Amino acid sequence: MIQITVMQIDNYGPWTVTPNPRRESDLQALQSRLYTDLSLQFGVHKGLVFYTRFDNLIAVTNGIDLETHKRIQNSVKNRYPFTLSMSIASAETPYEAQKIATKRLQEYGSAQDEVRKEVFDVSTELVSENEGYVQLAHIDIDDVTGTMTDKDSAYDTYLQIKDAQVKLFKSLKKYNALGFFIGGDNFMCPCNGMNENDLSCMFEDILKSDGISLKAGLGIGKTAEDASNLADIGLEIIRDGKCEGSVYTLKQNSEESLKIPHNYTCSI
Amino acid sequence: MIQITVMQIDNYGPWTVTPNPRRESDLQALQSRLYTDLSLQFGVHKGLVFYTRFDNLIAVTNGIDLETHKRIQNSVKNRYPFTLSMSIASAETPYEAQKIATKRLQEYGSAQDEVRKEVFDVSTELVSENEGYVQLAHIDIDDVTGTMTDKDSAYDTYLQIKDAQVKLFKSLKKYNALGFFIGGDNFMCPCNGMNENDLSCMFEDILKSDGISLKAGLGIGKTAEDASNLADIGLEIIRDGKCEGSVYTLKQNSEESLKIPHNYTCSI
Amino acid sequence: MIQITVMQIDNYGPWTVTPNPRRESDLQALQSRLYTDLSLQFGVHKGLVFYTRFDNLIAVTNGIDLETHKRIQNSVKNRYPFTLSMSIASAETPYEAQKIATKRLQEYGSAQDEVRKEVFDVSTELVSENEGYVQLAHIDIDDVTGTMTDKDSAYDTYLQIKDAQVKLFKSLKKYNALGFFIGGDNFMCPCNGMNENDLSCMFEDILKSDGISLKAGLGIGKTAEDASNLADIGLEIIRDGKCEGSVYTLKQNSEESLKIPHNYTCSI
Amino acid sequence: MIQITVMQIDNYGPWTVTPNPRRESDLQALQSRLYTDLSLQFGVHKGLVFYTRFDNLIAVTNGIDLETHKRIQNSVKNRYPFTLSMSIASAETPYEAQKIATKRLQEYGSAQDEVRKEVFDVSTELVSENEGYVQLAHIDIDDVTGTMTDKDSAYDTYLQIKDAQVKLFKSLKKYNALGFFIGGDNFMCPCNGMNENDLSCMFEDILKSDGISLKAGLGIGKTAEDASNLADIGLEIIRDGKCEGSVYTLKQNSEESLKIPHNYTCSI
Ligand SMILES: Nc1nc2c(ncn2[C@@H]2O[C@H](COP(=O)(O)OP(=O)(O)OP(=O)(O)O)[C@@H](O)[C@H]2O)c(=O)[nH]1
Ligand SMILES: Nc1nc2c(ncn2[C@@H]2O[C@H](COP(=O)(O)OP(=O)(O)OP(=O)(O)O)[C@@H](O)[C@H]2O)c(=O)[nH]1
Ligand SMILES: Nc1nc2c(ncn2[C@@H]2O[C@H](COP(=O)(O)OP(=O)(O)OP(=O)(O)O)[C@@H](O)[C@H]2O)c(=O)[nH]1
Ligand SMILES: Nc1nc2c(ncn2[C@@H]2O[C@H](COP(=O)(O)OP(=O)(O)OP(=O)(O)O)[C@@H](O)[C@H]2O)c(=O)[nH]1
Ligand SMILES: [Ca+2]
Ligand SMILES: [Ca+2]
Ligand SMILES: [Ca+2]
Ligand SMILES: [Ca+2]
Repeated sequence: MIQITVMQIDNYGPWTVTPNPRRESDLQALQSRLYTDLSLQFGVHKGLVFYTRFDNLIAVTNGIDLETHKRIQNSVKNRYPFTLSMSIASAETPYEAQKIATKRLQEYGSAQDEVRKEVFDVSTELVSENEGYVQLAHIDIDDVTGTMTDKDSAYDTYLQIKDAQVKLFKSLKKYNALGFFIGGDNFMCPCNGMNENDLSCMFEDILKSDGISLKAGLGIGKTAEDASNLADIGLEIIRDGKCEGSVYTLKQNSEESLKIPHNYTCSI
Repeated sequence: MIQITVMQIDNYGPWTVTPNPRRESDLQALQSRLYTDLSLQFGVHKGLVFYTRFDNLIAVTNGIDLETHKRIQNSVKNRYPFTLSMSIASAETPYEAQKIATKRLQEYGSAQDEVRKEVFDVSTELVSENEGYVQLAHIDIDDVTGTMTDKDSAYDTYLQIKDAQVKLFKSLKKYNALGFFIGGDNFMCPCNGMNENDLSCMFEDILKSDGISLKAGLGIGKTAEDASNLADIGLEIIRDGKCEGSVYTLKQNSEESLKIPHNYTCSI
Repeated sequence: MIQITVMQIDNYGPWTVTPNPRRESDLQALQSRLYTDLSLQFGVHKGLVFYTRFDNLIAVTNGIDLETHKRIQNSVKNRYPFTLSMSIASAETPYEAQKIATKRLQEYGSAQDEVRKEVFDVSTELVSENEGYVQLAHIDIDDVTGTMTDKDSAYDTYLQIKDAQVKLFKSLKKYNALGFFIGGDNFMCPCNGMNENDLSCMFEDILKSDGISLKAGLGIGKTAEDASNLADIGLEIIRDGKCEGSVYTLKQNSEESLKIPHNYTCSI
Repeated sequence: MIQITVMQIDNYGPWTVTPNPRRESDLQALQSRLYTDLSLQFGVHKGLVFYTRFDNLIAVTNGIDLETHKRIQNSVKNRYPFTLSMSIASAETPYEAQKIATKRLQEYGSAQDEVRKEVFDVSTELVSENEGYVQLAHIDIDDVTGTMTDKDSAYDTYLQIKDAQVKLFKSLKKYNALGFFIGGDNFMCPCNGMNENDLSCMFEDILKSDGISLKAGLGIGKTAEDASNLADIGLEIIRDGKCEGSVYTLKQNSEESLKIPHNYTCSI
């Protein structure tokens, strides 16, 4: 079971143009700051947020309780010119979980309903740190620096990565896995239920059709932070040529992850 | 002439994994904060920045001088655990300008060169507020709330918009125009040289092939802020049904823009 | 028992002038941002931080465990151009607790030692939410708006409040209580062990000698957040004229605090 | 002539307790963030802001025009849950300038008037970069690390510095100079009209009466940034033992400041 929190700024579209359109650089600063804050606030509780569309965000929140969610929702109201709705759900796959969470949120009214404010909903039981698990694939393009960044124009590199992203995300969806861009040439993909082989095959397909060579660290842990730390280490093991293949999996508390020297796991 | 500034975090990839991979929620907070700061710092000088890949950013900077650029570069060094390189160029189209700027930046060394730091380059003469102009299309999906946000799952809406984005950006490139996602269902597109008709045709094509209905405010002004304010107003005029067609153009200091009541232009 | 965390930026003085003095507006932005982040990160765990000298900060952290402290320390390293040392101690009074914590920190080396980095020390057992308690007096000047802000110059009002602050803090120290300025005309004072009467007498003295009229909400709770919420409510009860005297005390889970309507307690 | 901008959050007191008192850690985050933003936004225009009481701020703004002030005021409205009033004035001394600015602001209504919003006032002509000048004394305690930080408790050091601050600021006022705490053991003091001798005498008095040994770099420049850079360099010259006495003055474009190697001046 993976626990997903869907967040939505309440009635944001109308606000951006009331009474007149607001300066775009201010909106950009405001939206990216909300993302920064949520990253820090969920992060200090071992969660991981993705900016998605900035006005609608998706987070992996295994182990984070209702009181903490409410405190974060309340903190946004206390500091921003708008409020935030939150809907939490868990399921076997991340795709299902976010689908349930969104459905429940939608039942309270439209994203642009003037009255609907600070929805707070929990569709299913919360996933504690002891049940459930988070599986994250940290997917990365091989040598993006040498093949694109240092060679092509900044915008062309950007376009190529956006293109690869859409192809990758479509493939992931077949497995009920999600994908999010996390900067550079990196994608973080909540993918409970997928296995190394599913990923390898997907990478071969994309290499054949698009000529883009991918690799992934696959981390399985109790929380988003645990899983993402392990995924990062898996990626480094591939980068260091310490394993064959394009995917390397690490599972929390498995024998292998215990052998990793403590300081290597950048624990807590 | 449009002036474009390409920015790149120096040697960022290696830093993210030294000595061990850094917590992903911290990296997300760090990157989005850099974007917030640059938006505010360029914004207060009438510029507009796009986050692009977060480690490589593209800004429209007509009217912003070298000293201000350097002050911002220096301010990043003073407050972040990394440094930022900047390369400025101007050209008839935004695509060309960013291409020249990237090329010059690349000549100083790789993005992951350990020694290359705080490149500061100006390839062409700066564009003052009196020469040159910025043309921005603020492109938006019709009724995204009713057709996607309130109906589909948060992730499916996200995927559909990413898909539309890639199609849109490929079409724009034929005109040497750029496109950037600015949140929600919105794209900001520097497009000096395009005209209303080019945009309308593009929108018809996308409507036919993908069923997504687009509209745009097209703003032409001395600076990115001027252009983007006018583009926003154009978009509102379409939303209010005050014009026919899917594109509405406003030009700074043209007779029409002068008729707009002062408070409507959210001037300065 | 109250738990206090003393934090210190490592070797900060030399950094501010290396290789040359850094722009002061950047240092101000950097320091106040660190304070913002720590407020959010401890705040989402029910702690409360005071900026103190900006390079040395003091926090009330009852109920916050070591792992969370380390995660915050690590997050600072991941996002700032410097590192942070932390020392935690608990005692019957806040003054004693911070004294023990500072002493332990000092044993690791000077604040300007080039080698000493990220000290992490716990001198005494942590105070869980079930043992110990936090007592906070939220002290406020009566009608600062009418008597100073709207009448005197901005700087003179500032000076008068700084003056009152020093007098107040000296009086508080006799009770081993601490005091911090939290903006406007407000002081937050950790004061385990003091009682209503001690505060009232102090206020009378200050009124006589300086003509400044003070009042306080006194909150007693399991965590800094609980205590500060109750202190705020106590202050409102005085403002509303619902009680006599200049101090009003509320204790978590006491009969009276349970009678407060739920939404009034701005719970969580 | 020095130009001072007085800023005030509109009707902030009532907002902090409506509908119920807001979580204190959120208020601290909100207030210090406003200060961060204003530091960056004025900073990128060579201004310098002081947090003063957080709800009332004072800035030195020589060379910053009305349009930029308005853009910053508007940016606050676009991103915060409150608005900001601004009043600008210039005079021979900073004390007089802030006094005039405050007076004008007060004429528009109370700080806690529900209707008064976004006052924008300019009492006197703006000071361009070519007229007028800014004089800043960067005052610092000798060896605070050895004599206090590494020896006394964190809170006692804090108290001693607050005490010294009040004495210092009272002395400065006799010269119509202002003083602000900028972190650590540092004070930034706008002091057009004072001279080296006035400062030295003041330092001797404070040394005698309180045993605190002070020094200052005195910078005179066209803008707050220029003056503060020069003051910082002056302070370094004293620290390096390159001059006698406790005050060292540097004037922009004077012969001596031109001899400073370019990279030393951390210019722009
Ligand atoms: N968010 C995030 N971004 C990362 C991380 N590691 C690298 N990046 C981004 O990816 C960009 C490219 O770095 P790398 O992937 O190390 O470079 P590369 O040239 O592709 O090299 P290899 O992946 O080793 O083949 C960096 O500039 C970062 O933006 C990470 O752990 N998290
Ligand atoms: N960055 C940015 N985002 C905007 C702006 N206006 C709207 N948005 C985003 O777009 C989302 C959808 O709002 P709208 O486009 O107004 O809603 P809609 O349902 O598509 O309605 P119409 O466009 O009027 O048909 C909002 O939640 C915002 O995220 C803007 O000016 N700038
Ligand atoms: N940090 C913080 N500051 C507050 C709080 N309440 C008020 N303030 C500050 O105090 C300033 C003055 O507000 P009040 O204390 O309500 O105003 P007053 O005129 O003194 O009125 P009374 O205290 O009701 O007599 C505000 O501008 C805020 O800066 C609070 O809960 N926390
Ligand atoms: N805002 C700001 N703070 C500074 C600056 N320089 C130092 N500080 C602060 O002052 C503290 C003490 O540093 P120093 O003044 O260098 O240390 P010191 O022990 O007093 O040494 P000396 O002043 O050289 O005798 C630092 O931790 C900073 O908080 C500066 O330029 N700006
Ligand atoms: Ca890569
Ligand atoms: Ca739309
Ligand atoms: Ca008050
Ligand atoms: Ca000093």
